[in-house]
Amino acid sequence: MNLRIVKYIIGWILVFEAAFLLFPVIAGLFYKEYRHCIVYIVTALLSLLSGFFLTRREKLDISDQIYIREGFAAVSLSWIVLSIVGALPFVFTGEIPNLIDALFETASGFTTTGASILSDVEALSRTSLFWRSFTHWIGGMGIFVFIMAVLPMTGARSLNLIRAESPGPTVGKFVPKLRQSSLLLYFLYILLTIIGLICFMLSGMPVFDAFTMIFGTMGTGGFGIYNDSAASFTPLQQNLITVFMILGGINYSVYFCIISGNFRQILSFEEVRWYLLIIMASTIIITCDILNMFGSAVTALRHAAFQVASIITTSGFSTVDFDRWPGLSRNIIVVLMIIGACAGSTGGGFKVSRVLILIKSVSKEIHSIIHPQRIKKLYLDKMSLSEETIRSVSAYTAVYIVIIIASCMLIAPDELDFTTNFTAVLATVNNIGPGLSLVGPSHNFDVYSYFSKCVLIFDMIAGRLELFPILILFSPSCWRKY
Amino acid sequence: MNLRIVKYIIGWILVFEAAFLLFPVIAGLFYKEYRHCIVYIVTALLSLLSGFFLTRREKLDISDQIYIREGFAAVSLSWIVLSIVGALPFVFTGEIPNLIDALFETASGFTTTGASILSDVEALSRTSLFWRSFTHWIGGMGIFVFIMAVLPMTGARSLNLIRAESPGPTVGKFVPKLRQSSLLLYFLYILLTIIGLICFMLSGMPVFDAFTMIFGTMGTGGFGIYNDSAASFTPLQQNLITVFMILGGINYSVYFCIISGNFRQILSFEEVRWYLLIIMASTIIITCDILNMFGSAVTALRHAAFQVASIITTSGFSTVDFDRWPGLSRNIIVVLMIIGACAGSTGGGFKVSRVLILIKSVSKEIHSIIHPQRIKKLYLDKMSLSEETIRSVSAYTAVYIVIIIASCMLIAPDELDFTTNFTAVLATVNNIGPGLSLVGPSHNFDVYSYFSKCVLIFDMIAGRLELFPILILFSPSCWRKY
Repeated sequence: MNLRIVKYIIGWILVFEAAFLLFPVIAGLFYKEYRHCIVYIVTALLSLLSGFFLTRREKLDISDQIYIREGFAAVSLSWIVLSIVGALPFVFTGEIPNLIDALFETASGFTTTGASILSDVEALSRTSLFWRSFTHWIGGMGIFVFIMAVLPMTGARSLNLIRAESPGPTVGKFVPKLRQSSLLLYFLYILLTIIGLICFMLSGMPVFDAFTMIFGTMGTGGFGIYNDSAASFTPLQQNLITVFMILGGINYSVYFCIISGNFRQILSFEEVRWYLLIIMASTIIITCDILNMFGSAVTALRHAAFQVASIITTSGFSTVDFDRWPGLSRNIIVVLMIIGACAGSTGGGFKVSRVLILIKSVSKEIHSIIHPQRIKKLYLDKMSLSEETIRSVSAYTAVYIVIIIASCMLIAPDELDFTTNFTAVLATVNNIGPGLSLVGPSHNFDVYSYFSKCVLIFDMIAGRLELFPILILFSPSCWRKY
Repeated sequence: MNLRIVKYIIGWILVFEAAFLLFPVIAGLFYKEYRHCIVYIVTALLSLLSGFFLTRREKLDISDQIYIREGFAAVSLSWIVLSIVGALPFVFTGEIPNLIDALFETASGFTTTGASILSDVEALSRTSLFWRSFTHWIGGMGIFVFIMAVLPMTGARSLNLIRAESPGPTVGKFVPKLRQSSLLLYFLYILLTIIGLICFMLSGMPVFDAFTMIFGTMGTGGFGIYNDSAASFTPLQQNLITVFMILGGINYSVYFCIISGNFRQILSFEEVRWYLLIIMASTIIITCDILNMFGSAVTALRHAAFQVASIITTSGFSTVDFDRWPGLSRNIIVVLMIIGACAGSTGGGFKVSRVLILIKSVSKEIHSIIHPQRIKKLYLDKMSLSEETIRSVSAYTAVYIVIIIASCMLIAPDELDFTTNFTAVLATVNNIGPGLSLVGPSHNFDVYSYFSKCVLIFDMIAGRLELFPILILFSPSCWRKY
């Protein structure tokens, strides 16, 4: 591994984080929280200085290529550094005095998990609430996509950074040049965010609420600014959040097709079709299941749709405590937790496309038993799937299962019940937020020991980066010099 | 599909089942339960008659080949018929008046699951207790292996039957001829059973107990004849059961190597090494974890080893209620539930070799990220793994997950807790027996509705036949005529 280039990349991340840290200052100034503003400015300066220190001392030459291993290592280490520096303001202001707790909260923010250790969110300052939600927005589309959009870098060098960070088995191939592609992604992301912001404000949401909620919604994060998450918003506002969560979980290729007028191609996105179908089917089943808990079918439908959208897009907002729903609904929630959103979206989870590829490979296996002579080719979006893709999805599944089992074992000594542990791991690996039982919507993750919190922080970052980038850090041959 | 040959095979299964049904009559005569003896004889006659009816009417010619689909369909339908006919005596004697309950009990027996719906096992007649345990012994090695050993059939025709029934990703290739191979397997099975029987009797176990317990142990079943499973046996007897359960979960190729004096080859069985290592490691960790629950380390070690062996071999006997163990131990139990025994043994579960193949394919994936140019070959037992095998293991994993999720959804309306549902499905798909919470060792499966019981019966048979044989029954193209 070429450590020089990794250090260089981390340096740049710190410079950018310094810039991001100034955004909450604007909110702070508005609400006259001057003490908090100073903390954020100081952290930004610290970040900037260490960023300069890391980037300036290195002189890169043409031999400093970013191979996959450098790309993966740089991205996963960057995300860890990003979370640590982002956690400092919470510690400095004393709002979350313990560093591990603060790290949990920030990692949960950047990875768009939305799992919190705070029981009283409303006690936070406006500055910190803004930062907390803003981390969702930064992490949602990915910080490297942002850097690619801003920095001029050669394609071959930077592709491996994007590969490590972008969600789903396929890497977006909108336009041939990576920089243009990144710019386009951010343009779409900002466009959707602005549209959402306007809609939220038109529905009567206060400006601060609208900003923080759209950050959490478009980034499919899940940090709310109220203790009851999204329960105190009006039905209209809740429905708007539902719509924008679903939009956030859609493959961004769809939006690219829309703005380029290529409507016919939209129909070819099998993943998106299934994604919407799963949302509809789950909403209908759950609505029927919870009908007698709410006065009217309309209310039941609103809550069902909100929770389904929130879980499948791995956002994690809630309007009701779905842990009190009947067994069937709770089971559907757990299944949605596993499935997750579309590849190429800001959502996390296993991804609908991976589920489709797995199911198709099963049907191929059954087909080959019935017709041993005939060879069946697998297609997704009308394109044939390579053996390579199928194998990598299988390997992903295996790693996914191993990480879930290992995490469950590591947090088991805390002596919480099996449902709590299992859904806590699912909710962090899939970047959802709330689980069931003791980590359900009306509880928080402070029930766990510091060790378990570290395990769950690892799960969040591993899940956001789709497991492999962070796993190769554990392989000794990755660290070997050339 | 050639239905003629399927009918013919099912006919033969019924003839053999008639013979098996006479064994409990011997026990019944000994204990003077004449009424029960008559029931079993009548059922045997019914089975024999329908068997004759199905086989005699068909004239098979050389064109009646058993292709994979006929093999798979015949085996899965046979196992269903086997369970239904085997359930009749329980209904006729009135010991389990409801047919679905009786079917659950018998399917649980033949598939060596050992999950029971009875709260008072001791109330059963000796005849039925014998039959209940004997089904474990028949199902353990597989009824088709038995038929192959007895009937002279051409290789190509019958290989597809064995393929559908034998556990694990590899089919035993001891000797070139299938019949010899089957004979050898049954010889080893009977030999181990007799050795176990003698050991049990020497340890002071009553003859009836020794017979029924060795059936359950060698078949890795789990039906006990006492309400407290194996808790009332002496420590020596419990340790003997532990040893024979572990022996039952070992790949039978090992025994073949032992009797043919090929000791060097035994060391090459990677799966068996890992199987024993997992047992040792889990036993040590659990012993430490439960040390303060029992007086001495020796007692803790005995209970830990017994429960670990019982779960990993998917037997399901118990000496203590492991549902009351601390969180770490209970989590290890759940992981062992998933892993299961060795391929080519009488045990069920996901199989150690599949876990190994999955982990190896993950390491290959990580390797290919770090060294994109180099291609890594995967080896198991020093033989290279084909892409075919790896793909089929992945497909198996996918089906496994889908069946577990689907079953959890189907039994969810019973409104039991998540832990109960999840472990009930694991315990039936993996043919273990007890789960945790309401289906833990001190409870039984009668908590479920008849619909859920049917789902779990399906899971047991699907799990025993390694999922695909029963799945192809649902594919319309399987039923199409040639």
